[in-house]
Amino acid sequence: MNKLKIGIVGAGRIGNVHAESITYHIPEAEVVMVTDVIEENAKKLAARFGIPKYSADYMDIVNDPAIDAVLVCSPTPTHADITIAALNAGKHVFCEKPVHTSIERIRDVAAAAEKSGKKLQIGFNRRFDHNHRHVQELAKCGALGNVEIIKITSRDPEPPSPEYAASSGGLYIDMMIHDFDMAMFLAGSDVTEVYAMGTSLVDKRIGEAGDVDTAIVTLTFENGALGVIDNSRRAAYGYDQRVEVFGSLGMAADENDGDSTVKVSTAAGVVSDKPQFFFLERYMASFTEEMRQFIKAITEDTDVPVGIHAGLMSVVLAKAAKKSLDEHRPVKISEITGA
Amino acid sequence: MNKLKIGIVGAGRIGNVHAESITYHIPEAEVVMVTDVIEENAKKLAARFGIPKYSADYMDIVNDPAIDAVLVCSPTPTHADITIAALNAGKHVFCEKPVHTSIERIRDVAAAAEKSGKKLQIGFNRRFDHNHRHVQELAKCGALGNVEIIKITSRDPEPPSPEYAASSGGLYIDMMIHDFDMAMFLAGSDVTEVYAMGTSLVDKRIGEAGDVDTAIVTLTFENGALGVIDNSRRAAYGYDQRVEVFGSLGMAADENDGDSTVKVSTAAGVVSDKPQFFFLERYMASFTEEMRQFIKAITEDTDVPVGIHAGLMSVVLAKAAKKSLDEHRPVKISEITGA
Amino acid sequence: MNKLKIGIVGAGRIGNVHAESITYHIPEAEVVMVTDVIEENAKKLAARFGIPKYSADYMDIVNDPAIDAVLVCSPTPTHADITIAALNAGKHVFCEKPVHTSIERIRDVAAAAEKSGKKLQIGFNRRFDHNHRHVQELAKCGALGNVEIIKITSRDPEPPSPEYAASSGGLYIDMMIHDFDMAMFLAGSDVTEVYAMGTSLVDKRIGEAGDVDTAIVTLTFENGALGVIDNSRRAAYGYDQRVEVFGSLGMAADENDGDSTVKVSTAAGVVSDKPQFFFLERYMASFTEEMRQFIKAITEDTDVPVGIHAGLMSVVLAKAAKKSLDEHRPVKISEITGA
Amino acid sequence: MNKLKIGIVGAGRIGNVHAESITYHIPEAEVVMVTDVIEENAKKLAARFGIPKYSADYMDIVNDPAIDAVLVCSPTPTHADITIAALNAGKHVFCEKPVHTSIERIRDVAAAAEKSGKKLQIGFNRRFDHNHRHVQELAKCGALGNVEIIKITSRDPEPPSPEYAASSGGLYIDMMIHDFDMAMFLAGSDVTEVYAMGTSLVDKRIGEAGDVDTAIVTLTFENGALGVIDNSRRAAYGYDQRVEVFGSLGMAADENDGDSTVKVSTAAGVVSDKPQFFFLERYMASFTEEMRQFIKAITEDTDVPVGIHAGLMSVVLAKAAKKSLDEHRPVKISEITGA
Repeated sequence: MNKLKIGIVGAGRIGNVHAESITYHIPEAEVVMVTDVIEENAKKLAARFGIPKYSADYMDIVNDPAIDAVLVCSPTPTHADITIAALNAGKHVFCEKPVHTSIERIRDVAAAAEKSGKKLQIGFNRRFDHNHRHVQELAKCGALGNVEIIKITSRDPEPPSPEYAASSGGLYIDMMIHDFDMAMFLAGSDVTEVYAMGTSLVDKRIGEAGDVDTAIVTLTFENGALGVIDNSRRAAYGYDQRVEVFGSLGMAADENDGDSTVKVSTAAGVVSDKPQFFFLERYMASFTEEMRQFIKAITEDTDVPVGIHAGLMSVVLAKAAKKSLDEHRPVKISEITGA
Repeated sequence: MNKLKIGIVGAGRIGNVHAESITYHIPEAEVVMVTDVIEENAKKLAARFGIPKYSADYMDIVNDPAIDAVLVCSPTPTHADITIAALNAGKHVFCEKPVHTSIERIRDVAAAAEKSGKKLQIGFNRRFDHNHRHVQELAKCGALGNVEIIKITSRDPEPPSPEYAASSGGLYIDMMIHDFDMAMFLAGSDVTEVYAMGTSLVDKRIGEAGDVDTAIVTLTFENGALGVIDNSRRAAYGYDQRVEVFGSLGMAADENDGDSTVKVSTAAGVVSDKPQFFFLERYMASFTEEMRQFIKAITEDTDVPVGIHAGLMSVVLAKAAKKSLDEHRPVKISEITGA
Repeated sequence: MNKLKIGIVGAGRIGNVHAESITYHIPEAEVVMVTDVIEENAKKLAARFGIPKYSADYMDIVNDPAIDAVLVCSPTPTHADITIAALNAGKHVFCEKPVHTSIERIRDVAAAAEKSGKKLQIGFNRRFDHNHRHVQELAKCGALGNVEIIKITSRDPEPPSPEYAASSGGLYIDMMIHDFDMAMFLAGSDVTEVYAMGTSLVDKRIGEAGDVDTAIVTLTFENGALGVIDNSRRAAYGYDQRVEVFGSLGMAADENDGDSTVKVSTAAGVVSDKPQFFFLERYMASFTEEMRQFIKAITEDTDVPVGIHAGLMSVVLAKAAKKSLDEHRPVKISEITGA
Repeated sequence: MNKLKIGIVGAGRIGNVHAESITYHIPEAEVVMVTDVIEENAKKLAARFGIPKYSADYMDIVNDPAIDAVLVCSPTPTHADITIAALNAGKHVFCEKPVHTSIERIRDVAAAAEKSGKKLQIGFNRRFDHNHRHVQELAKCGALGNVEIIKITSRDPEPPSPEYAASSGGLYIDMMIHDFDMAMFLAGSDVTEVYAMGTSLVDKRIGEAGDVDTAIVTLTFENGALGVIDNSRRAAYGYDQRVEVFGSLGMAADENDGDSTVKVSTAAGVVSDKPQFFFLERYMASFTEEMRQFIKAITEDTDVPVGIHAGLMSVVLAKAAKKSLDEHRPVKISEITGA
């Protein structure tokens, strides 16, 4: 079999996740090079997965004619440049989210993708989660009737440092971006308006750094449905990831995955497992599945499951939410997109 | 409306339960007399529910022409005598379980009932429980296909005193009798053979008193199904009452009722309510429902929902189980009934 | 025992509910008169529960010196007049919600109550529900730490007629008022600001009548917590009543009550009971409990569990929500109260 | 890294499972040869996982000095011969269950293992299941107190052909053997007596072939606990795998794994996922984990987690159960072992 040749830019946590998926679970592809500005990290990742080449310069991947596809796993500010360079070099690209914090720059990426005719997939892995995807499938196939209300709860087990919060772009773009994408995925419709509440209840230093750690955002969808997302940077019981779609024929809702289904009944009560710890535990299978579908979209020349529109709209919603919070009013999406 | 006039023999816990059901929940009937060999208890019960007459002698009820029906809530050894006297006096009778510990004496009761033409209902209240009954209805209506396996778990929150265990007739007749009846109710079939295991793990003084506190009994039903009951005199987490029917088309199983549906998620885990404490909490509604149906069987002249055959067979199974334990072998029901 | 004498004004559905609770479950009190402008209804209710007197004029209750307390179960527009008359006559009063649709008129009621020194309880029965109350107790006792997010889902099984929707004052005051009260009960704090979304997805005639049938409202609490309520006038699977409190130490959430705990596993899936049908099934025990506590507050001379402040604030929030919807902006509570 | 070299004897379903685990999930080992009497099967497996050598003769593995360990995945009658040959050749051996249907032959294997000083692990994969193992850990660590009752339910989704049933050795050794091992694993104790019930309710041709398809077996453990296993060859709702340990301090019980946690609420009820289809779905992770621990026992020179004693006792219990069924009486384990 002629395996698809993959280059990975960025040897951090998510680069390792994708390398593991491809190496162990996707026989149709193989990682042939990894780069990282910290060359030692690229070397380590290469050694861990038996990848033949590594380098400090992502252009080594872009310029390698043997490489078919590039995974952009570097820090957010570099996503657009690398993605555009790779597309222009005729590579298929998988780009982590957010694509960029500038709407204009995301549009540049979209234009490059269109011009290149290559596949461009955005890394919204949660769409491939066994629970959330099953809810979405039920909504999409009509089993729930007309979709009327979307609810998403997403809470991290532990807050980041105030420094991280300050530099990450804030909760709406750093954390809730996944939920914005999930909301539109579940509704099968884009959002037209956002109203954002946010406050700092978990760690007041996060508030002092200009960010929020507890937030509720409501959404109006093009198809008439209403939605609400709640986020917290800290849940004492662990990583809380639940979605609910309510429609004219019924409701589908998922619950957290635990490590087991065991219930322990003692004098203290009936105790079940807490949610799996964090995203690497909870969503590992979804990372593998998104990669499998990216490879498949290339080898079978089909549409990618998550395109640049999703990459754009999620950032647009994050910006609308921030504006809503700052101006204390509902914000129309058209105010951000200019459309 | 002409209310049905009820006399209650025995002013203990279960007499109070039935008085409460009738007084507050069954407008078609009223308790007009209560007796107890300890007259003070009869007086108290009468005062609590506004019952006009009380006495120390159950014959005051039997001989009162104004009384339509008698509830026999006195100690087990007196059940048969009182029931027969009341039937012979033309009263309908509701008799608590077990009817008697002698098969012959139960047959006497059956004969008296037949001769009198009056209603005779036995107090297997669990048949009226919202959970167990729903399982039975599913089995009976064919939704589960042919019934193949019956499983019953029944565990008390706290063990009785060794003295009680010694005098109660033992676990099989004192505690598992409910489960024997439930098993036949769920299977829609009588039992033909029993194999009993039993041991004393909860309190060795119970074993020293000649009884067991932990038991598993397997059952063979006339219709070919197999069954198993497990009992413990003590469950640290409370009163554990679950049944399961497995058939060719599927399974119905119930879970314990808690006081609420609340789940509390903290660093310690996800905690649900323990089962409701004991039978007065867990089965209160079933006591009311069995009484409502007894009254209805009289006023509408229909068959009682739990007749003397159930009263007989449950004791037969208890005796077969004891014999099986003693002789360490499976025991056919015909060995007990002589049929 | 000297029973508390109760008069009921209004012989509709809720008047019958309270009469049943008192007659069958609260031995400390008795209903001695019922009135209804449709005298036939008063007569029927009286007959059903053996109440000695009935009339078409509520003043017959107000003027009866033998009556200790009045339950105001008449249509909303008459609540304030009757309540004030009864308080002025020295009666304790239990008044159904909403107290009135005018803030001023509710303040009149509050003033009358204060002047009279009598008990005045408002009929927010859901506070006495076994599930929601358990969540509130966990929040109140500190088991969840600082309360940060409140979530309430409340959906009716079937929509009302468009005519009803038009005349009821609208979803926010007719339906969500319960949730506004519940939100403040769970948070242990009043609300300071409201943002309301609403639309007509269930029945467009409801929208044409000027009301909404699908709504999401977000709340800001005085104590810093955030909240969200979602309502729908129709849930295909039945009456959906769930609350969730998220705090710094964890989360408490309840689930719907079904009629049984049975799970049926067949080739079609694992099926559990739907929620209990509607409020008379789901909340019957809470109606009895609120009445029991009202009687107890009188007989033991303690504070009522739900006072006029709750009656006022719930209407204030409903008005704020309507204003928010109309003006498409967050609305401060002080805009409504003038405080 | 110097990888452990593995040879696999038997290229059927389970041989493929182990090859997949080692190839994709256990970097410390690699499969270097596979054999199967049908050489084409060995060739296919080798190609699928990139294994360099294949053959029709297992002695090619036994005689290869480069191979460290052998996985015996061939049909049951050949297990003992191959295992002994491999042990005698100085290989570590992982042998699928049952080791043999002859007690004597299993003892020969045990003797060979002891003499060789090599590791010998038996393939009871369910001990490594995330759910069952968690129950066992709770029992073992004392969280449940003294273990008193063990319950195991194990039902296959679809019955085998009557021909298979006839040739497999019967339900007790072919299917319930897993549950016998699980029971002793959970109890932390061997079994001393067995009583078996069995019947043919699923497919009467199975009965005509001399086997049962529906069975309940009760167990007495050395430590005084009681146990019960129920088996069915067909569950309409899928593969039903549940265990329960009840002890003096409480109970731990697991539930089936579904493909998702989604609940769908419609007018038809609240529907959850059925259990995962069959053992390859339900227990795949446990197969990987048992192999990981086998490799680890070799590389770190520690005891294997499942030794030949488990292999022996499970077959002893199956034989005792068959004898109990045939002779319709409880059978002591010593009757089978001669001890």
